[in-house]
Amino acid sequence: MAISLASQPTLRWDGDISGSLWMIDQTLLPLEFREIECRDVETVWEAIRSLRVRGAPAIGSAAAYGVVVGMQTISVDSDAAGFAERLVQVTEYLATSRPTAVNLFWALDRMKRVVAELDGSTRAKIERLLKEARTIEIEDREMCAAIGRHGAELLEDGQGVLTHCNAGALATAGDGTALSVFFAAAAAGKRLHVFADETRPLLQGARLTSWELTRRGIDTTLICDSMAGWVMREGKIHAVVTGADRIAANGDTANKIGTYSVAQLAKVHGIPFYVAAPSSTFDMSLASGDEIPIEERAREEITCGFGKQTAPDEVAVYNPAFDVTPAELIAAIITERGLIRPVNSRTVVDMIGA
Amino acid sequence: MAISLASQPTLRWDGDISGSLWMIDQTLLPLEFREIECRDVETVWEAIRSLRVRGAPAIGSAAAYGVVVGMQTISVDSDAAGFAERLVQVTEYLATSRPTAVNLFWALDRMKRVVAELDGSTRAKIERLLKEARTIEIEDREMCAAIGRHGAELLEDGQGVLTHCNAGALATAGDGTALSVFFAAAAAGKRLHVFADETRPLLQGARLTSWELTRRGIDTTLICDSMAGWVMREGKIHAVVTGADRIAANGDTANKIGTYSVAQLAKVHGIPFYVAAPSSTFDMSLASGDEIPIEERAREEITCGFGKQTAPDEVAVYNPAFDVTPAELIAAIITERGLIRPVNSRTVVDMIGA
Repeated sequence: MAISLASQPTLRWDGDISGSLWMIDQTLLPLEFREIECRDVETVWEAIRSLRVRGAPAIGSAAAYGVVVGMQTISVDSDAAGFAERLVQVTEYLATSRPTAVNLFWALDRMKRVVAELDGSTRAKIERLLKEARTIEIEDREMCAAIGRHGAELLEDGQGVLTHCNAGALATAGDGTALSVFFAAAAAGKRLHVFADETRPLLQGARLTSWELTRRGIDTTLICDSMAGWVMREGKIHAVVTGADRIAANGDTANKIGTYSVAQLAKVHGIPFYVAAPSSTFDMSLASGDEIPIEERAREEITCGFGKQTAPDEVAVYNPAFDVTPAELIAAIITERGLIRPVNSRTVVDMIGA
Repeated sequence: MAISLASQPTLRWDGDISGSLWMIDQTLLPLEFREIECRDVETVWEAIRSLRVRGAPAIGSAAAYGVVVGMQTISVDSDAAGFAERLVQVTEYLATSRPTAVNLFWALDRMKRVVAELDGSTRAKIERLLKEARTIEIEDREMCAAIGRHGAELLEDGQGVLTHCNAGALATAGDGTALSVFFAAAAAGKRLHVFADETRPLLQGARLTSWELTRRGIDTTLICDSMAGWVMREGKIHAVVTGADRIAANGDTANKIGTYSVAQLAKVHGIPFYVAAPSSTFDMSLASGDEIPIEERAREEITCGFGKQTAPDEVAVYNPAFDVTPAELIAAIITERGLIRPVNSRTVVDMIGA
C-alpha cells in the first residue's frame, strides 16, 4: 500500500476522445489498490451504482467522463438528431445510477448544455464534451482547495475533530471536502486529532477515510458510529466536519446515513457541526430537505456486509443510505466561495444564487 | 435453525456435582447453533471473555456454575483451609474475565458467602455451591418474568420500540430483560414493531436480538446503529428499552457502547428511554456512573470484525465496550421489584436498599 493518493487520482481520463476513464475501485480498499478501466457507459454506471466510485463530487466527474465514453459508440457521420438522441439516452441512463447526490444530475445537465447549441461534426462535439468533463474535474480540484482554505480557519491547533463517512480525496477529483479542511489545517501547522466514524453499512470511514488520513500523516482514530456520542461526552471532540450529497435551498443537508444523529449529538454537547460541500451540491429547486429523495439500498449490505451472514434470513431490514440534517443543526456550510453562516434560506441564496 | 430458545436454555447444568456446564456458543449465532461443554474453569473464563456467553445476568449464572466446575478439581479429603484457598483462587480468576458487568462479582460474592460459614465435607460444600448456582439461575428466570410484567405496562398496542444490543433470553437464564418486556407485551396482545440496532462492533443486535425476536414471532426490523436517530426523526419509535451492565447508586447506567447516544437521541425526539435490569445489576458502592470501570476491547473487533480486514493497519482504534447513560436521560428503570421512576439517588435507594 505504498501508493499515495497525490500520485494516483481517484479518477483520470487516459488519451484523447477515443480514450477511456480509469477509476480506483474503492470497494477493494484498503486491502487492495486496483484501478478499473471504463470503456463503455455500462461500466461507468455499474461503478457508480456499486460505489466503486462514490462521493458526490467524484460521482459528478465520473458521470461527465461517462458521457464521453457513452458517446464514443456513435458513428462519426451521424447527424445532429442522431447525436442528440444518443446524448439523451446516455445521460438519462447515467442519471439512474444513484438517486441522491445532486452533483450527478448537475454534471449531466452541464454536459448536455455545452453541446446543445453547438454546430459541428460529431467529432467536434465529443471533443467539446471531453473538454467539459476535464473542466469539471479541474474545477473540482480547485473547489476542494478553496473549501480547505475556508474551512481550516474554523479549526484550531490541538483540536479533536470528528468526521463521518468519506468526504476525502476519494470522494472528489481533488483533495476532498471535509478532509480537505483537515489537510489544509494540517498544512497550516495545526495539529488535529481526527476521529473517523467507521460508517456502517459500507465502512467508508474505516476503509477510505482512515486510509487517506493515515497515508497523509494525520493523527487518526477509528471508532464505531455508536461511539461518537460517547467520545463527545468524554470531551475529545471540538468540531464535526462532514460532506454532503445534496443541500436544499434552506440549507437542509442530505448526507450519509448517521450524519443526522452525529449533528444532534454535536448540538447536545455544544460542539459546532460543519458541512463542507461545493456549490454544485446545492439543489435550489428544493425548498427544504423534506423533498430530497433518500436512496434505500439492499438488505445484504447490513446482513452480509463482509462476505459473511450476520443476521437471520427472517428479519426485516431498513437500509436508507442517507438522512437529512436540518439547517438549524449546521453551524456553517463551507463552500468553495466561502462560509454560509448562519445557515438559512436567505444566507444560502446570498452565497449560491436563486 | 429450528431449535427454539424455550426448549434450549442459554446455559444449563448437566448432572450432579461431578456434572458440567453447557452453554450456547453465542459467537456462532445466527448461522450455527452449538452448545459448548465446560468441564474446567478455564473454559468458563474463556467463554465469558470471548462473549460465547454474554449479557450481565447470564454472566452471573455462568460464573456461579463456573465456581462449581472450578471446585471439582479439589481432592475430596482436602481440609477447610485448602477448600477456602481454592475457592478464593477460582473466584478471583473468574472475576478477571470481564470488568464491567457487576452481576459477575455479585454472583461470585454470593457463592463465596454460602460456604464461608459452612462446616462439613468438601462434597457437602460443593453440593451447597451447586445448589446456590441453581438458585441464582432459577431466580434469574423469575426475575426476567417479573421485569417483563412490570415493563409491559409501559408499552401500548401498535407502538414502535427500539432496542440496542441483546438483553434477551440469550443474556439471561430466563426470557431476558429488555426483550422480556417485549415478549410480555406481545403475550398481553400488544402488537409491537421492534427496531433492533445491529450493535457494532460485535453485532449482538443483528446476530442475537434479531434471531430471538423473529423466532418468537415479534415483528422486527434490523437497522445499523447510525440509523436510530433518523428512524426516531421519521416518527417510527415510541419507546426505547435496553438492558444494563452496571447501575450506580444514583441511577447512572453502564450498558453496551452506543446506549448513551441512543438515550440522548431519544431525549431530543421526546421518546421515553427505559432500562430493564434486575436489582443485582445495581452497584450501590458507586455513587455515580463516573466510577464505573469501562472495558476496552481489542482493535480487531472493529478492524477485522467479519473475518475480513476492513481498516488499514496504520490507524489507531478506540474500542470502549460500554458507555454510561446519566440517570436524567432514563425515564424509568424496570426492575423485578417494580419501576424506579423518576430515576435518582433517592428512588434507587427506596427500591434497591442502601
